[in-house]
Amino acid sequence: MSRRMRVSVVQLGPIPKDDSREKTMLRLLNLFEDATADDRTDLVVFPELALTSFFPHWEIRDSEELHAYYESEIPSPGMAPLLEASKRKGVAVTFGYGERTAENRLFNTASLFKGEKELLRFRKVHLPGYNEVQPDIRHQNLEKMYFRVGDLGFPVVDFKNTRIGLLICNDRRWPESYRMLSLQGAELVCIGYNSPIHTPSIAEADILTDFHNELSMQAGAYQNSMWVIGAAKGGVEEGVDQIGGSCIIAPNGKIVAQAVSNSDEVIGADIDLDMSARFRKHMFNFTLHRRPELYRAITEPMPEGWPRPALSS
Amino acid sequence: MSRRMRVSVVQLGPIPKDDSREKTMLRLLNLFEDATADDRTDLVVFPELALTSFFPHWEIRDSEELHAYYESEIPSPGMAPLLEASKRKGVAVTFGYGERTAENRLFNTASLFKGEKELLRFRKVHLPGYNEVQPDIRHQNLEKMYFRVGDLGFPVVDFKNTRIGLLICNDRRWPESYRMLSLQGAELVCIGYNSPIHTPSIAEADILTDFHNELSMQAGAYQNSMWVIGAAKGGVEEGVDQIGGSCIIAPNGKIVAQAVSNSDEVIGADIDLDMSARFRKHMFNFTLHRRPELYRAITEPMPEGWPRPALSS
Repeated sequence: MSRRMRVSVVQLGPIPKDDSREKTMLRLLNLFEDATADDRTDLVVFPELALTSFFPHWEIRDSEELHAYYESEIPSPGMAPLLEASKRKGVAVTFGYGERTAENRLFNTASLFKGEKELLRFRKVHLPGYNEVQPDIRHQNLEKMYFRVGDLGFPVVDFKNTRIGLLICNDRRWPESYRMLSLQGAELVCIGYNSPIHTPSIAEADILTDFHNELSMQAGAYQNSMWVIGAAKGGVEEGVDQIGGSCIIAPNGKIVAQAVSNSDEVIGADIDLDMSARFRKHMFNFTLHRRPELYRAITEPMPEGWPRPALSS
Repeated sequence: MSRRMRVSVVQLGPIPKDDSREKTMLRLLNLFEDATADDRTDLVVFPELALTSFFPHWEIRDSEELHAYYESEIPSPGMAPLLEASKRKGVAVTFGYGERTAENRLFNTASLFKGEKELLRFRKVHLPGYNEVQPDIRHQNLEKMYFRVGDLGFPVVDFKNTRIGLLICNDRRWPESYRMLSLQGAELVCIGYNSPIHTPSIAEADILTDFHNELSMQAGAYQNSMWVIGAAKGGVEEGVDQIGGSCIIAPNGKIVAQAVSNSDEVIGADIDLDMSARFRKHMFNFTLHRRPELYRAITEPMPEGWPRPALSS
């Protein structure tokens, strides 16, 4: 008998910064109810920074105003209603949030919870954007100013009859992220994201934002024989238009379910976890075919002068 | 002024094993003439094992018969006519061949030549298939029996106004391959391949062979901001039906030229080498965004028990 799981994705439309935390939480709770209405869902996946607006899109000078976007005890009071719903339904939930530690260290974080029990925490590794305000662009991305690089590596956890990892947004464009998870045996990865259609630094790619989203996650799924669950926050939030495209991707790289809007929307799929094992048996048998001794540059410090480093002799 | 280059791809149809070397070379020469007829092509890319049939698809017990498929001095007499054409036209050429060293070590190799001058040599790292004959399957893949794992790493060379690397067939499904080249500053990679539509070990993926070909190369291009030039040997060769789909892919992941057949066919494109530099400036600025210290498992020996290794505490 094959190992199966039912996964639901809650795509969110914009969360205006003037919406109260209470109003947003009510919205998330209603969507969680939709996502679990079939009484057989095992896991509900929400996007990156699901409790608030994506605040790195603008400058916040006042530290009190900034800190209101972070949770400082995990689980936090602000999460409590969603975790209560998770407990009541017996359904696990993962979502992203700003994390502020007791030492005032700030991270872009996602956790997997079953009720109040935190099963897994990931802190975003690949922070895009800048650590200072950029002049003359349509919107900022100040993630390098508002967050530190994640210090937890790429952790995985056994959940139900499989092994799960988490990634956040820009992590999905870097093949190392998926590889770190699949090397540890993860068969499923949940990825929340906020992806503006317009990227000021490389506007020639704006027409390809959806394509790059799918390409990165489909390649990650195929090349690692993993289920990839992508959950978007889409639509126009505080003037920034973001893609939707939330999707569930099989270990063969094919999209098996996808959102059709860029606003609040629930999608789901029954997934065959053994598919991962089948692809890892021959073609993507890492033990037989990978050559880690030949990849050394991947874990060495970046070469001086890149992208035009000196040729090694 | 942008740095530009004109690249042509020679896709090959089947090379029957009973065709003489001379007959095959005449065919390659005619295709090289087609590919350079515009008098402005800088580089012509041929597939993997372009001088012969893809002989790993069957068992060869007689060592003399087997060794006839390899070149033992590089450049070899069997390559000479093509290299003479390269010299006469002043156009570089890359193609794959079986390589047998003086020490009788056998490799699946590709070289880049300008005339008789060998500019770059790569020996295939990711050998698929088996080191012994498999029973009850429609065709063999005995690459692990007929070749050693490449021992040259992932070399690059400066050519004209850019930097080039080579990969071979199954190397293109492994993200580490592209990464090793882009970390060294390669802006263009040439990949020859022979890809059967039917893979006995994972037949459920047969309907996706073209998709996986494109997905792997498009992701490699996008995630490494590189031009990817894919050259297929397609069609039914010795009973094995292979995909065509030769293509030229931009650093934004988009296919800019693609073969429409699975037989002899020439495609070409003018490519903008600065596109690579543009994508490496912000979004894929490896120096700013990669975290090599967090990727250690990628260069460590494969974990015991993978794909279900013990969880690290």
